[in-house]
Amino acid sequence: MLGSVDVLGSIDSSINGAGVVGWLPEDFNPTTFIQELVHNIDDIVVNNKCDSQNYKNNNGEREKIVLGRDMHTVSLEITEPDPDDEVTGEREAYMASVLSKYKKTLTEKTNFHLGYPYNLDFDYDALCQLQHFSINNLGDPFIESNYGVHSRQFEVGVLDWFARLWELEKNHYWGYITNCGTEGNLHGILLGREVLPDGILYASQESHYSVFKAARMYRMDCVKVNTLPSGQIDCHDFKAKLLSNKDKPAIVNVNIGTTVKGAVDDLDLVIKKLEEAGFSHDRFYIHCDGALFGLMLPFVKRAPKVSFKKAIGSVSVSGHKFVGCPMPCGVLITRLEHVNVLSRNVEYLASRDATIMGSRNGHAPLFLWYSLNRKGYRGFRKEVQKCLRNAHYLKDRLVEAGIGAMLNDLSSTVVFERPHDEDFVRKWQLACQGNIAHVVVMPSVTISKLDDFLDELVQNRALWFREGKYQPRCIASDVGINNCLCALHS
Amino acid sequence: MLGSVDVLGSIDSSINGAGVVGWLPEDFNPTTFIQELVHNIDDIVVNNKCDSQNYKNNNGEREKIVLGRDMHTVSLEITEPDPDDEVTGEREAYMASVLSKYKKTLTEKTNFHLGYPYNLDFDYDALCQLQHFSINNLGDPFIESNYGVHSRQFEVGVLDWFARLWELEKNHYWGYITNCGTEGNLHGILLGREVLPDGILYASQESHYSVFKAARMYRMDCVKVNTLPSGQIDCHDFKAKLLSNKDKPAIVNVNIGTTVKGAVDDLDLVIKKLEEAGFSHDRFYIHCDGALFGLMLPFVKRAPKVSFKKAIGSVSVSGHKFVGCPMPCGVLITRLEHVNVLSRNVEYLASRDATIMGSRNGHAPLFLWYSLNRKGYRGFRKEVQKCLRNAHYLKDRLVEAGIGAMLNDLSSTVVFERPHDEDFVRKWQLACQGNIAHVVVMPSVTISKLDDFLDELVQNRALWFREGKYQPRCIASDVGINNCLCALHS
Repeated sequence: MLGSVDVLGSIDSSINGAGVVGWLPEDFNPTTFIQELVHNIDDIVVNNKCDSQNYKNNNGEREKIVLGRDMHTVSLEITEPDPDDEVTGEREAYMASVLSKYKKTLTEKTNFHLGYPYNLDFDYDALCQLQHFSINNLGDPFIESNYGVHSRQFEVGVLDWFARLWELEKNHYWGYITNCGTEGNLHGILLGREVLPDGILYASQESHYSVFKAARMYRMDCVKVNTLPSGQIDCHDFKAKLLSNKDKPAIVNVNIGTTVKGAVDDLDLVIKKLEEAGFSHDRFYIHCDGALFGLMLPFVKRAPKVSFKKAIGSVSVSGHKFVGCPMPCGVLITRLEHVNVLSRNVEYLASRDATIMGSRNGHAPLFLWYSLNRKGYRGFRKEVQKCLRNAHYLKDRLVEAGIGAMLNDLSSTVVFERPHDEDFVRKWQLACQGNIAHVVVMPSVTISKLDDFLDELVQNRALWFREGKYQPRCIASDVGINNCLCALHS
Repeated sequence: MLGSVDVLGSIDSSINGAGVVGWLPEDFNPTTFIQELVHNIDDIVVNNKCDSQNYKNNNGEREKIVLGRDMHTVSLEITEPDPDDEVTGEREAYMASVLSKYKKTLTEKTNFHLGYPYNLDFDYDALCQLQHFSINNLGDPFIESNYGVHSRQFEVGVLDWFARLWELEKNHYWGYITNCGTEGNLHGILLGREVLPDGILYASQESHYSVFKAARMYRMDCVKVNTLPSGQIDCHDFKAKLLSNKDKPAIVNVNIGTTVKGAVDDLDLVIKKLEEAGFSHDRFYIHCDGALFGLMLPFVKRAPKVSFKKAIGSVSVSGHKFVGCPMPCGVLITRLEHVNVLSRNVEYLASRDATIMGSRNGHAPLFLWYSLNRKGYRGFRKEVQKCLRNAHYLKDRLVEAGIGAMLNDLSSTVVFERPHDEDFVRKWQLACQGNIAHVVVMPSVTISKLDDFLDELVQNRALWFREGKYQPRCIASDVGINNCLCALHS
């Protein structure tokens, strides 16, 4: 099967001319091949062979292979326009037809989406008029550059809103709108490293992969901490690991909602363990990765607070998740004192550079400003409550149907037994890990959508099990015995 | 004057309630205050005091100040909607009026823009219909994730186009569409570091600031190399510095167009110097920062080639510069063999993570695909030629008017004596450094716009000099004696 993902084939002699792949297929359907490809990849994932594979090339040398290179064959090649295209309008017509079909695909994919924590329900028609402008918030949000086509006045409005949400005063915070949750984590952890240059990074093993990527990028020592079945950081293990590294400061990533299980680390307990292990407040730095729940938690009744009144250094959240946005974006808020260690002047921009990216998407602040202004705290509270209600509904119905499932307190991420059919997984775009899958209940996930999903799952499940080829998976090691409904534990 | 940029004032007691700044000003004009603020900052820059300043706070302690915090007072605060807003439509109406005024400001700012290398002339109306979708190319462009709302088929089409432009075969390259030129540089230099972990980073002192940011982020030793008056890397100095660090591999940033002077480093000479200094090809890695010129150079007659047939490891280019795009974006192309050292698997996404950002803007590939398909190589060649012609026109007219100016071969960046009036600088959004300013002639910069600019400059200049307060600046140390027209050198 892997033969179909061959990167070692002969060099395409047409590389400097027209490609071999026709770019105007009559029956254009990019999804067909992609589905096959994904199928292959998924199988590899299932078989735990997804890592770069070693294969012999023609010379018998072992070379690494990169999976999925066959995307070239489904890609929409760019070709040279004919000289008379402008006259005939052929090119424009072709592109319009590609885009129209693509829109149809996107609509379908959007309708059957459950697995990723993206709110797909938004209406930014009012902002379409601004797509004509190249809006770039170069450098620092608080310092103008000479480039006039920016949206800083909207960006700072958004930042103020988030700083208020997390209880840091206007004059004591710094922040910016990032390109995604990962950039927020990269920035928060970089701040930690600059404040405590020889600090060790601590993160639970269920932290987002960007946290470990940061450690590698920044050449930081990193200690992985165990997790509880809920997905929360195991504070007992955390303290033990702190004690065996007492000589070095601690930079701690705290998950305000883990990626897979939506588990919220106990921030207060983390701080307590640091104190118990003898770390004074100037010897640790906490970054809170609030990708999804950073915005939800403040609206959950009785939830512990993410607040700068506690000993934390930075919080990041994604903008395309709970708020919803056409493209990924995020928010990073930190204490003003921390960012000074990072900043340096760049006269060229007449702007200080304390961001990671420098050139920054000026449209993202407009989307966020628009949504926050429309919904307000009240609107978000309503949406959060609806999501939690719907998540409980989903979890209860799964369990009723005999499907092992878990829903953490404070969370709208329902973890359950991974469906046995990868076509089904792909159709509903479920995110999977080992034996478990999850659905993240976002504002765009309605009861009626959940019902469709549940009915189809229950129906299909009966089929999968009928032939005796499959049986319910054991998910006890993932979510604990109590939540498992396999033959052994039900 | 600095008193107006006070961050040490009392804490706004309204922080958890309504802000003190009205968010519905009758005479909303965000630019007025901003201009004053920029004025202050510019003066500070001129006086070389732009670095974080030390000032005493109320307790007499010295704290660092961050310039420009007064952005809070011009920001568009987000407030809670009234309960009846949905019924009355007040909120929608308010936001529509803010956006309408903002659009007017953007139009003006776009019309008077000369200083930044952004092509502001684009028409993506056909793509507006896709703004309804949350398009995210999670992870690797060549490997599908389970999230179906993506644009990989367009992204890979764009990447193929660039790989062909820089002469790397389809099956031998890897790349992705980045959020901006900086991300391309961060990725290219990270690749270099992963391939040669104890390598030293070499970059000319006129390299983009993101290169030095990368060195700091990645904890790499960095050697700054001198430049010639043109802005090109001084290869004599480069070789000398290589020879004094012979024991460690070299990671070299080569500028395909410096930020300020548009100088193109001599790639062939850089490679020659590495070889002369005894560095075999497995002991150096070259990243080409082609932010602007990476896309222009291939279309300039007799220009040296940026090509993977030479001993280079990666090339990056910005998408919002010569192509033009509503938001910043860029392209990074590298050899497939290099990216393997960086990649790791993330089952959660069913995708490998070799990008920096993970979640990636799926709209940017659509913009690039659309522009490249419409224009093709032929279209870009025409635009590049027009830009170079117009740049020569500008340079010639400046010199005719007695204004010291320089235009590098292969470049459309015209460097000249910094105007004496910061209002003028801001109006035309010129990028300045010390005594020089520049205009980057992009496809959106027409002869008629240049004429307006030149007429106004010449007229104003006469006024500035009339009172004897100012005289032409000496720019010999920036661009060489031959290009200076100050009293001493004219």
